[in-house]
Amino acid sequence: MATAQEITSLKKLVRATNFLATSQIYLKQNVLFKRPLKHSDIKPRLLGHWGTCPGINFVYANVNRLIVKHQRDFLYLVGPGHGFPAVQANLFIEGSLSHFYPETIPYDESGIEDICKKFSAAYGYPSHANPEAPGQILEGGELGYSLSVAWGAVLDNPNLIAACLVGDGESETGPLAASWYANRLVDPATSGAVLPIVHINGYKISGPTRMGRMSHEELDLEFRGLGYHPIIVDDELEQDVYEQMAQAMDLSYQMIDDIQTRARNGEDIVKPRWPVILMRTAKGWTGTSEFNGEKLEGNCDSHQVIVNKCAKDPAHLQALNDWLASYKFDELYNIDDNGNLQFDADIESLIPPKQLCCGRQHLSYGGEVVRALAQPDLKALSYGPETPRGTRGLSMYKMGEWMRDAFKLNRDQRNLRIFSPDETYSNQLQAVFEETSRAWQWPIESWDKDMSRDGRVVELLSENLLFGMLHGYTVTGRHAMFPTYEAFSQVVSSMADQYCKYVYASQGVHFRKPVPSCNVVLSSLLERQDHNGYSHQNPSFLGAMLEKHPDIISAYLPADGNSTLTYTERAFADRDKLNIIVAGKKDLPQWLTLDEARKQTKDGIMVWDFASDDNPDVVLAGCGDYVTQECLASLVLIRELLPRVKVRFVSVTELNSNGLGSRKFQEKPWRMDDIFTEDKGVVFNYHGYPNTIKKLVFDYKGSHRFRIKGYEEEGSTTTPFDMGVRNGTSRYHLVIDMAYKLFQQGVIDETQHVSITTDMLQRLVEHRNYIKEHGVDPKEIENWVWTR
Amino acid sequence: MATAQEITSLKKLVRATNFLATSQIYLKQNVLFKRPLKHSDIKPRLLGHWGTCPGINFVYANVNRLIVKHQRDFLYLVGPGHGFPAVQANLFIEGSLSHFYPETIPYDESGIEDICKKFSAAYGYPSHANPEAPGQILEGGELGYSLSVAWGAVLDNPNLIAACLVGDGESETGPLAASWYANRLVDPATSGAVLPIVHINGYKISGPTRMGRMSHEELDLEFRGLGYHPIIVDDELEQDVYEQMAQAMDLSYQMIDDIQTRARNGEDIVKPRWPVILMRTAKGWTGTSEFNGEKLEGNCDSHQVIVNKCAKDPAHLQALNDWLASYKFDELYNIDDNGNLQFDADIESLIPPKQLCCGRQHLSYGGEVVRALAQPDLKALSYGPETPRGTRGLSMYKMGEWMRDAFKLNRDQRNLRIFSPDETYSNQLQAVFEETSRAWQWPIESWDKDMSRDGRVVELLSENLLFGMLHGYTVTGRHAMFPTYEAFSQVVSSMADQYCKYVYASQGVHFRKPVPSCNVVLSSLLERQDHNGYSHQNPSFLGAMLEKHPDIISAYLPADGNSTLTYTERAFADRDKLNIIVAGKKDLPQWLTLDEARKQTKDGIMVWDFASDDNPDVVLAGCGDYVTQECLASLVLIRELLPRVKVRFVSVTELNSNGLGSRKFQEKPWRMDDIFTEDKGVVFNYHGYPNTIKKLVFDYKGSHRFRIKGYEEEGSTTTPFDMGVRNGTSRYHLVIDMAYKLFQQGVIDETQHVSITTDMLQRLVEHRNYIKEHGVDPKEIENWVWTR
Repeated sequence: MATAQEITSLKKLVRATNFLATSQIYLKQNVLFKRPLKHSDIKPRLLGHWGTCPGINFVYANVNRLIVKHQRDFLYLVGPGHGFPAVQANLFIEGSLSHFYPETIPYDESGIEDICKKFSAAYGYPSHANPEAPGQILEGGELGYSLSVAWGAVLDNPNLIAACLVGDGESETGPLAASWYANRLVDPATSGAVLPIVHINGYKISGPTRMGRMSHEELDLEFRGLGYHPIIVDDELEQDVYEQMAQAMDLSYQMIDDIQTRARNGEDIVKPRWPVILMRTAKGWTGTSEFNGEKLEGNCDSHQVIVNKCAKDPAHLQALNDWLASYKFDELYNIDDNGNLQFDADIESLIPPKQLCCGRQHLSYGGEVVRALAQPDLKALSYGPETPRGTRGLSMYKMGEWMRDAFKLNRDQRNLRIFSPDETYSNQLQAVFEETSRAWQWPIESWDKDMSRDGRVVELLSENLLFGMLHGYTVTGRHAMFPTYEAFSQVVSSMADQYCKYVYASQGVHFRKPVPSCNVVLSSLLERQDHNGYSHQNPSFLGAMLEKHPDIISAYLPADGNSTLTYTERAFADRDKLNIIVAGKKDLPQWLTLDEARKQTKDGIMVWDFASDDNPDVVLAGCGDYVTQECLASLVLIRELLPRVKVRFVSVTELNSNGLGSRKFQEKPWRMDDIFTEDKGVVFNYHGYPNTIKKLVFDYKGSHRFRIKGYEEEGSTTTPFDMGVRNGTSRYHLVIDMAYKLFQQGVIDETQHVSITTDMLQRLVEHRNYIKEHGVDPKEIENWVWTR
Repeated sequence: MATAQEITSLKKLVRATNFLATSQIYLKQNVLFKRPLKHSDIKPRLLGHWGTCPGINFVYANVNRLIVKHQRDFLYLVGPGHGFPAVQANLFIEGSLSHFYPETIPYDESGIEDICKKFSAAYGYPSHANPEAPGQILEGGELGYSLSVAWGAVLDNPNLIAACLVGDGESETGPLAASWYANRLVDPATSGAVLPIVHINGYKISGPTRMGRMSHEELDLEFRGLGYHPIIVDDELEQDVYEQMAQAMDLSYQMIDDIQTRARNGEDIVKPRWPVILMRTAKGWTGTSEFNGEKLEGNCDSHQVIVNKCAKDPAHLQALNDWLASYKFDELYNIDDNGNLQFDADIESLIPPKQLCCGRQHLSYGGEVVRALAQPDLKALSYGPETPRGTRGLSMYKMGEWMRDAFKLNRDQRNLRIFSPDETYSNQLQAVFEETSRAWQWPIESWDKDMSRDGRVVELLSENLLFGMLHGYTVTGRHAMFPTYEAFSQVVSSMADQYCKYVYASQGVHFRKPVPSCNVVLSSLLERQDHNGYSHQNPSFLGAMLEKHPDIISAYLPADGNSTLTYTERAFADRDKLNIIVAGKKDLPQWLTLDEARKQTKDGIMVWDFASDDNPDVVLAGCGDYVTQECLASLVLIRELLPRVKVRFVSVTELNSNGLGSRKFQEKPWRMDDIFTEDKGVVFNYHGYPNTIKKLVFDYKGSHRFRIKGYEEEGSTTTPFDMGVRNGTSRYHLVIDMAYKLFQQGVIDETQHVSITTDMLQRLVEHRNYIKEHGVDPKEIENWVWTR
């Protein structure tokens, strides 16, 4: 139970932060409201969302109270969109802003002027949570991700509580809806807790929310069904809402503590029943409640800026005047003769010790808190040591072995996770279950396999939930992999964008240090989704990510098992990136020794000497494991047919939005001309959409020599080889394309050209007929072996 | 209450369909099991998911019973993934397959042989729901969309019930979770109903589901909280599960009928409490229940193909033998001397009249059921008639007026909807509220605006839910628009892919006829998200969609209000497309008369004579409304600075994955050289990522002359003009780029080049300083007026 003194302090702190939030939204001067407002005090452009601010402040104050009381690590994640002035107000009062920005935001009147001036202004502070704001761990604005990110942050941080304010607008999104399911996945013995607080202010930008029109009973039912213990706080109930909220926070803390204590004392907690606070306070609470007969408070009309003509209209200005005056802000602070700002002692009593302030939570800053990963020895895992060319192997299984060893090596650090939408087995990563299991807090039956409370593999069939957790886990300094079906990675493309934005913007913030990269692994690739059909054939994510984020995205398409290992190693050593590794889960020919794979991984592109001739007449390039096999098969063919023709094979394994694998395309240690010659035709066989390669080689002056092949949106239930036939990426098509280039260049004559083309087309027809008849690929295709 | 006779019939039908599903998965011959199986009867490659099949069959039979009983329109949507053999078995028995494929699937033994042979085979039938399967309305496989599509299908189809089988795996996805919220949006008086049946078989591919480990009470709470009336069916309860299910179906039907009858009799139904059936039957029910001591039935081990070594291992084969024998299929059919197949009379009693079979539901086939849209008169809406150049206007507001008039003209047809994630106002479409309102079935308060039970605008803050509804609404023959924030359209990129796949695959199916296009409108564009910050600046969706689906995607970027109108008209007249219209919601200069806009819309590209010189020295191209303004402003500048230089302005308003606006790029009625000259430099200013244009002009032989400008991932809270400054798309940058091209071509000398560049850089610095100081754009930028 909160003391009367605590309630008084809470009320004062919220008055202060509500005042400062309002001040930031409206005022360009007179920001401390030392005199009544004039029109000239008002900013020319009024931005930000007032409606959600009071709720953010109310919760921030209550979180502070818990921190002070329990001296424990808290993060405060803010889901609602543009209520950033509220966050900023608290970061100012607690001193975090002045700590990180002592020059521009000193702890005095000029500091307040600064945040007022720069809020939502050009070259100022954004209008939603962002990396420049201390303590925040996601780029706010795109709704739905706060809760899953909070869950990710508390994993393996047993002392951490992530208080997460979830908006009732945000609560209508699918990603947020699925985030509640994480209570199945987080082990109270070894991880921290999330304290979700749903702010049901009832309205979105122009209408009511789903939850806003639900009864208490309905809300209670829904959250109990979800497995939580709902606690309702409602400003329309008789008890003072401050008392209700403080009580709800105490009860929540006690429940969290109880679950954790029992779990940590060895009790097996089935279905941990975490608290959730369902907080009903009016939208725009404490603002102008009515204006011109229109209901503002407790209505969508207070979502954005209310009385927004205050720069010109005296009635609007008067309303704002009354509103600001109601906070009696002057009673809450003192500025001494030296200009030092001091808040009221009651307010001070709610400010946690510096290191525990939400804005100072060290877990949010990367750098020192990163728990470095001990990496497995590749020699023990790789194919070889003799050259593996001709043997067969399995890239994803190798990656699973790497992860198994990494889990073993880092057992005590607890700094590595797999987040997978139900696909660890299906993507051939099952070797990890020799070392760990899947986390599951609901009942485990005797016949269940590889499940335990404390497993390091986090599986649920929601790409959205898991990507959010991945985000939260990695930006707080730990390492993780997100293996998923290539076709369904697209589900999280927008989340991946927001992750990239967060990391990119963080790089410009002086107090944010590097964090481990996010490693997305695409498997169950389109060529091998032949049996699953068209819905499972979709390389979109790769191409979409390679359209943008040149400083954040690295795309790796290892051609075989050893290069899958070297790229996995590289991805986990890297920082501040979103790495995309594309690797097959089926048997394929192996090509590179470990040393060769290391070189390939360093450069991202390599002429494969064993498959190439000097002074080539034509260049064949491959990017992707399955298409590489087809490339090599086409080389065997063309050398049979045209023994005198000289061909070079280029393996491309790294792509970047600025062009192939380069940061700036033209600044690579290797020259494009050295790789692709100065004047010969290039046939480029690519795993995904040809458009992806087109944009990436556009700026190369020799790009007109490129004939780019890839997935042309022709899919169905068929065979792997026939996928290539339908999309023109098969060995026979490549021979046709190389022959055309050779004919164009005068290396072969028209008769040869026609004869080769005819031959290949005939083989294509034969094979297609075979497939139609037998439903499988011909043996000579399935069992193809490289020879030279 | 079902009669004993009905229960007997249901059991027989399910025995038959379970048999036929199993047969499709395993057998290449002896498909009627006329003799014990031999190894040689087994397919070489076993595909498909057995585990979910019995549930699909069980529900299909029960849906049939309701149709027979009530003679009413039903659709049956199947969420679970690869259980297609079950759907196919039912489509065969009810005769729909033989109706649509009389040659290959006659209603006899050879028809059954055909579906067995072709199931999940190359050039056969896919392993999940697909357009080749009669009655299905989405490409199955990517989980989570069945329920939202079902809701979309029943809108404005008051007689239709969409029975939707939702998997418990699928139920873990975010999009599915948000789909339950549609009960707020669908008016029982004027629309049909969805009957959701959640199949809780407890397992995904390799582990338990969230719902699988919930108690009855928890499930009941959750769905009651969601606003439904849950009815639990459980094969572990004492009552026969067939009786339970028939009873649950009857009760559901009765509840639906009751709600609809009351609503249609004028009662205002607040919170219609639709039924949902929570159906617990074992995964792999009726299959091999244990094998080698391993639990198969009621476990994830029966997810895919069980006893999968039956082609070689006698014990596996024996198990399959026993399993198939258990259905006593031979008792369920007769083949007469002419080879005619006849099923048992009890089974026949459950087959609905032909036109009411789920596979024959006419609403799923497009063509005749399309309710044509009466289109507004553009003359009344357009800016003009005198040339609007120099005036200002607002594209999205114009679109809203068009929609308002369209709603008015089509009031009786009930064939038009807006699906918008809470953004109808925010995207400036508010004119529609002069004619209609937003649909809302929960309480409406006195202060709510533009809300009613029967509104034609469907708003909720879930892009996923709304896109699914859009899909369901349009593929069943109605028209719709999905206006959304550009930055957040990416949330549904994967759903948009699946929509495109469905439409593209449908085009190859003879009985599917064209359906209205899906019209996605992107507004709140990045240049005007200056104030909202980096999270709101994201043109990804456009670029990602333009990487693929060349036959389905049309992207339109009208430069002004009149061309927004002509493109809106075109989009709604089109069929079988996903149109993306990109249009701003803020004041911008207007350029084209209605006639000019029509010409522009026809060609997708146009030289703007009023802004161009003959025999140009350099070409400037613009694609996007805001960048077009900058282009025109740069022309004014460069003509001041270099009066003798001749410039052409090209407006590009249509893009397609095959290159610019062309279906096949090189086959356009206009020639690239005629537009872009044969040898002059081209500066191309684009709204989105430069990579998008790079891929689209790659195949043009003159592409090396292109300097492509666009959004370079540099965003924050700033001003519209400064967005251009940060990304190099401002008027000053364009002058610099044109001057460089002119210098390269020798049109201007080095002195001129240096002087112009210096001048522009200085203006950039001045403006940036102004913005930093004042937080807004300088007046000469904000109020810029075209002059020539």
